[in-house]
Amino acid sequence: MIQEQPFTITGIAKGAGMIRPQMATMLAFIATDAMIPTPLLQTSLHQAVQASFNRITIDGDTSTNDACVLVATGQGPLKMTHSNETALTLFTQTLTEVCTQLAQAIVRDGEGATKFITIKVEQGLVEAECLEVAYTIAHSPLVKTAFFASDANWGRILAAVGRAPLQNLEINKVQIYLGGVCIVENGGVAASYTEALGHQVMQAIDITIKVVLNRGIAQAEIWTCDFSYNYVRINAEYRT
Amino acid sequence: MIQEQPFTITGIAKGAGMIRPQMATMLAFIATDAMIPTPLLQTSLHQAVQASFNRITIDGDTSTNDACVLVATGQGPLKMTHSNETALTLFTQTLTEVCTQLAQAIVRDGEGATKFITIKVEQGLVEAECLEVAYTIAHSPLVKTAFFASDANWGRILAAVGRAPLQNLEINKVQIYLGGVCIVENGGVAASYTEALGHQVMQAIDITIKVVLNRGIAQAEIWTCDFSYNYVRINAEYRT
Repeated sequence: MIQEQPFTITGIAKGAGMIRPQMATMLAFIATDAMIPTPLLQTSLHQAVQASFNRITIDGDTSTNDACVLVATGQGPLKMTHSNETALTLFTQTLTEVCTQLAQAIVRDGEGATKFITIKVEQGLVEAECLEVAYTIAHSPLVKTAFFASDANWGRILAAVGRAPLQNLEINKVQIYLGGVCIVENGGVAASYTEALGHQVMQAIDITIKVVLNRGIAQAEIWTCDFSYNYVRINAEYRT
Repeated sequence: MIQEQPFTITGIAKGAGMIRPQMATMLAFIATDAMIPTPLLQTSLHQAVQASFNRITIDGDTSTNDACVLVATGQGPLKMTHSNETALTLFTQTLTEVCTQLAQAIVRDGEGATKFITIKVEQGLVEAECLEVAYTIAHSPLVKTAFFASDANWGRILAAVGRAPLQNLEINKVQIYLGGVCIVENGGVAASYTEALGHQVMQAIDITIKVVLNRGIAQAEIWTCDFSYNYVRINAEYRT
């Protein structure tokens, strides 16, 4: 629940397995007291969902059963309209924060998850290609099992970047960071990288992979989790 | 080693993890005594590899280090030329058999594999779309963990077919078989299907998934394996 504004937004959500391509197997219920016309509410929700529930993945598997429902009671003090752009922008920002908290909670609750992985892809030509790179990394079983093992395996991440379906990517220009540590540059392991540095970064539960494509100004960020024994157990033994 | 022909072909191969997109992390060495010009040998090998080493996957991950080497000593009794089409066809067929045996052996030896899964996709518009469907099934962690559990989970297979990147697929026309048992028809579980039938089929080590798209005459066949605790162990603990 986020307050300190002329409205309140509260949400709950459940996951968490096959939540691709957009939200599937996910249910989110959000309520607000904001006084806001339905079309504006729908636009706000669409923007918030794009940046939150549509930016997470567990195992790449998909489902058809999803919902994100937003109810506005209209009891709040401030009427939000097109002419009140400041209030509307604040509302959408706050709604996005709520959705992002819920989306990240789904990933933390992912089947068998032990790590929370943020994947940022920067300096791409367009957002779509940044997302392609991010999801290719996020869906690699080898990257996911390396994170489960707290193993800073730069080669597995680089291989995933290399096979993402991008046109004319110059892999030698790509830089990859784990937390603040540069692990890949010039097509191989970074000159400044040491195993001790990688080991240190990987001890955390929350870890960020940053990929710099060096060919544009677009960027994207998604969240995923690792691949553990418990993922296999949950999905193999769910009937026993 | 396959003989009874006017030539001998012998091969060895090693796998087996990230063998996508074509052969990677795989080494195969094949030798023959056939008397055959290099261009014809190259053509035969290309055809054989397309139908064997390029039709397998373990986890969808990729690598850059592959090789399939074929050496011909030319000591055999029969000279193979363009004009001797029968002998040339026989040679390519036999080479394909050797490569298929090796490719399937790589899958059986896949990291943590307990099941050998043949995926046949039939009645597609073109071979490429049959391959898309086959690889989407083969790379689904949910399908792979279900096979590890000997669980005839028709819904996970159907969901994978449904999200394969095909244009205008009518999912209600798709039939899916496990072994000889029809598990999906008319967009849901087959009328004749029972859990006892599914349970029986899934006890085998070698299991065939057949998907009938009902919209053309193209087909494709690939081989893959399941996803087990040992897959996670091998790829998480390989440094310890």
